[in-house]
Amino acid sequence: MLHDNTAKIAHAEAPSDCRAPGADAQFPRVGREVRPDGSVVSIGDVAFGADEFVVIAGPCAVESHALYDEAARLVSRLGARVLRGGAFKPRTSPDSFQGLGMSGLTIMQQASREYGVPFVTEVMSPEMVGEMEPIVDAFQVGARNMQNFALLEAIGQTRTPVMLKRNFGATVSEWLKAAEYIAKGGNDQILLCERGIRSFGDETRFTLDLAGAMWAKQRSHLPVIIDPSHAIGIPDLLAGAVAAGAAAGLDGVMVEVHPDASRALCDADQALTPTQFEELMERVAPIARAAGRSI
Amino acid sequence: MLHDNTAKIAHAEAPSDCRAPGADAQFPRVGREVRPDGSVVSIGDVAFGADEFVVIAGPCAVESHALYDEAARLVSRLGARVLRGGAFKPRTSPDSFQGLGMSGLTIMQQASREYGVPFVTEVMSPEMVGEMEPIVDAFQVGARNMQNFALLEAIGQTRTPVMLKRNFGATVSEWLKAAEYIAKGGNDQILLCERGIRSFGDETRFTLDLAGAMWAKQRSHLPVIIDPSHAIGIPDLLAGAVAAGAAAGLDGVMVEVHPDASRALCDADQALTPTQFEELMERVAPIARAAGRSI
Amino acid sequence: MLHDNTAKIAHAEAPSDCRAPGADAQFPRVGREVRPDGSVVSIGDVAFGADEFVVIAGPCAVESHALYDEAARLVSRLGARVLRGGAFKPRTSPDSFQGLGMSGLTIMQQASREYGVPFVTEVMSPEMVGEMEPIVDAFQVGARNMQNFALLEAIGQTRTPVMLKRNFGATVSEWLKAAEYIAKGGNDQILLCERGIRSFGDETRFTLDLAGAMWAKQRSHLPVIIDPSHAIGIPDLLAGAVAAGAAAGLDGVMVEVHPDASRALCDADQALTPTQFEELMERVAPIARAAGRSI
Amino acid sequence: MLHDNTAKIAHAEAPSDCRAPGADAQFPRVGREVRPDGSVVSIGDVAFGADEFVVIAGPCAVESHALYDEAARLVSRLGARVLRGGAFKPRTSPDSFQGLGMSGLTIMQQASREYGVPFVTEVMSPEMVGEMEPIVDAFQVGARNMQNFALLEAIGQTRTPVMLKRNFGATVSEWLKAAEYIAKGGNDQILLCERGIRSFGDETRFTLDLAGAMWAKQRSHLPVIIDPSHAIGIPDLLAGAVAAGAAAGLDGVMVEVHPDASRALCDADQALTPTQFEELMERVAPIARAAGRSI
Repeated sequence: MLHDNTAKIAHAEAPSDCRAPGADAQFPRVGREVRPDGSVVSIGDVAFGADEFVVIAGPCAVESHALYDEAARLVSRLGARVLRGGAFKPRTSPDSFQGLGMSGLTIMQQASREYGVPFVTEVMSPEMVGEMEPIVDAFQVGARNMQNFALLEAIGQTRTPVMLKRNFGATVSEWLKAAEYIAKGGNDQILLCERGIRSFGDETRFTLDLAGAMWAKQRSHLPVIIDPSHAIGIPDLLAGAVAAGAAAGLDGVMVEVHPDASRALCDADQALTPTQFEELMERVAPIARAAGRSI
Repeated sequence: MLHDNTAKIAHAEAPSDCRAPGADAQFPRVGREVRPDGSVVSIGDVAFGADEFVVIAGPCAVESHALYDEAARLVSRLGARVLRGGAFKPRTSPDSFQGLGMSGLTIMQQASREYGVPFVTEVMSPEMVGEMEPIVDAFQVGARNMQNFALLEAIGQTRTPVMLKRNFGATVSEWLKAAEYIAKGGNDQILLCERGIRSFGDETRFTLDLAGAMWAKQRSHLPVIIDPSHAIGIPDLLAGAVAAGAAAGLDGVMVEVHPDASRALCDADQALTPTQFEELMERVAPIARAAGRSI
Repeated sequence: MLHDNTAKIAHAEAPSDCRAPGADAQFPRVGREVRPDGSVVSIGDVAFGADEFVVIAGPCAVESHALYDEAARLVSRLGARVLRGGAFKPRTSPDSFQGLGMSGLTIMQQASREYGVPFVTEVMSPEMVGEMEPIVDAFQVGARNMQNFALLEAIGQTRTPVMLKRNFGATVSEWLKAAEYIAKGGNDQILLCERGIRSFGDETRFTLDLAGAMWAKQRSHLPVIIDPSHAIGIPDLLAGAVAAGAAAGLDGVMVEVHPDASRALCDADQALTPTQFEELMERVAPIARAAGRSI
Repeated sequence: MLHDNTAKIAHAEAPSDCRAPGADAQFPRVGREVRPDGSVVSIGDVAFGADEFVVIAGPCAVESHALYDEAARLVSRLGARVLRGGAFKPRTSPDSFQGLGMSGLTIMQQASREYGVPFVTEVMSPEMVGEMEPIVDAFQVGARNMQNFALLEAIGQTRTPVMLKRNFGATVSEWLKAAEYIAKGGNDQILLCERGIRSFGDETRFTLDLAGAMWAKQRSHLPVIIDPSHAIGIPDLLAGAVAAGAAAGLDGVMVEVHPDASRALCDADQALTPTQFEELMERVAPIARAAGRSI
């Protein structure tokens, strides 16, 4: 990161990045015209952007081995194909629970192996990329780090899949340009995740920008999913939102499920109970199939 | 409107309004607890809030008899159950086309009878309510007039159904409270329509607040539809958005269709061509059915 | 209002409106190039857009003769040059206090004569314009009615000054185009008032768009003031905001002052006490003078 | 950064952070009640939060030694007390000019010594903190990194002053909590900078949240400045905005000035020419003095 850029001004691009000849000036690597049929991004053996509408589920944070194992068992049995969970948590206040750190990663890895489902988890700084790379199935870049360019560049140097969440104050174009930073390093295994934007209302937690997610899918070749748990924050509305995402042609969804939702250490109000998650899957399945996707 | 309110301060409510005993303090007439099973609102013989996912279609403005007749014939043949069209157009600039006025109403009424589909059209001031009432099947209150309280009160005195669009700068709660103004006069035939809110992005015309529409349906007993033409403004994204609305459990949709979309006098870029509308209906039908609705 | 517009499509403009030959296409009547030196708009004998930084003050609503008289006496003694107060109040819920109606107008008129200061008050529907015109010194168009075009047209037919508040969801350009509706009727006595826009934060009531107000002044010839009471809603921050408006070159301010602020029937938390208003005037006066304005 | 947090869950706080006993739960280290009279933060010998209204000026990016030296000479002669300039630039697209890197730092350091004014420049990742610390007079945390918690923690471990810009999608409370991350490490030399938030309008580049900046100053003890160049982006409006900031009681301003503004490599349209900067200083000085500040 710490280098002299003087020589770079005249010739901006290295030849080995993901940019196609003749590609769109705005999104030269992730623009739809680079791959008109769209990309498939695989986390473990689960493919995003192909036939399946993929459900990622799990608790917000890894709190203990027992709780995470129970969550992983439940959600994988009910149809989740990828696990989620945070070991390093980006919290607004430094005095909030910050996650279990490396031991949280170990807990997720064990559950992932036990139940045969890959997992995705957040990485928060460039220096963590190397240490986490051998452990995780996919990196998550959180909304607050969407324009942490040093982090994006570090991930761009790996070949590990990455789920790039949209920042709540960023336009869709800025989100795609953040993906360009990763792709420029040569890593094109990028999954986009819309998680709600800031707007003026207070009825829902954020504003789910479904049309923005559709625009991202139309204008880029990357698979796109939504995270209605963070966007909406009201468990009763999640099943409808997930069904909407499937109907809109998006590639999957990430939802928070907690075995004991009311006692979650983080975002307790928005997690689904196992029963709610089961009902969600039952409601969404026929919609996904009607939209031409397996689930 | 012009009266002395002094006597009203102490006793705020007339006894004959739609408010149920024991109703929610926030939405005493339109709150879900007033009618836990939801209301059915009928425009002509078309019921919103019942089994059907209802499609309203037509051009933005009525431009001529020939064009409107052609549009009405096309969309009714392809499955639209209610016609839309503006005779009085609320335009940002006074120098833009303002609509045909009363002759536009006549044109819509003729097409409505010809093709056997009711129509909804915008009313812009209290004094127009009485003159339009015998002609229209339903009033539309446009986004800019959502808090034109004199207009809401005038409509509340009629028994004509009304589609109340959400203002692009209003919260969902403010929208439901605007519906309270209509209901307070005794008119409970209110259909809510989300048409996009203002936010910071410029990729779509406005931001379709799908979760806000879901919240409105959860918290009120009124049927709720979306207007993705105004919310998104990109014809290629409309079919996905309409399918999303059906999957989310909403009650219908309003879309702009123009027989010669590129030459529309108003909002030309966002209208669907007849072919695009036909493809939309084909894509949406299986989704609506999978969500348990006829279409 | 209810007429046939067919004949108007081909020739859009009447010859007698305020549009200058060769004026800017975007704002043909209120654009700065129409009057490069700016307009002066007078309410009674108080000129906006001239040498003075004008303070409008008073309670949100007229609640009783005694309270309003006391408020008028206090604020006029402390330097307010125009009185404010609502007789017809646009309230989000129909069950909130709606104002005293015509008797409120009479109360304001009496206080205005008693203390020798003109008053401005809100008009909410076209049919009220004619009845209020002989009584009021200036109309106020509230934020919720900024795009109530029938109301704007009715006011455009009068020659009474009008304060046009910006809608909280409207762009500055839309605000200036709303002013065009009034000017098109021949009434060019238009004072613009920025009262805060919707954004995502909740620390202040709305977001005071000071730069938007400055842009309006740069691009139009109309005088521009701010209403920090509604925009910010925190009495301790008002004096600083008013001083900022004076420093930025705006033409005045409107603030809420209530003789017994904690018991106001409307927006109680945001009104200044008489003592706070006095402190505000003392803080603002040297700033206004340093900015080249009397106060 | 990469550690096991298990042991930290039960006892959240180290004893050596900046938190005062009995401090506000929301902002335990930067809350106003911690230091009711406010903090003074010094960059070099220039004090923010004391008597002076401080002007920081310079080009957006360091482009060459000659241009930066000229800019530094001009702005320091005209009254700027701190230099600004970017060596590492956070650009939305990876294909835009990224800054000169370390050689840019050297250029700034030389100009700073030559003209006797300290400089502030952006740091973009935790690993750069150590290398830049001996060179810079103050770090800048850019808007996009406001919640890059690893970066905030790294800066918290230094004793170098830091200017923390508000993210354009962050609430004021989130901004103050980001400052808590720095303060928790023991570094209390934090200067807050409001640089505009995202909202729906497009007349100005962002929306300058002047009242939000005032709220930050009221609720925290930290000095607060504004950056109208990024917030507004229209050179003609900057002088008024800076004057407004002084009148509102804020502690200073940061503006972009470029010796050849139309040819700047970065944000060319928004930089002031030297002449415009001189006029700005002449307009602001009497306002700052009327507000009780030297300049």
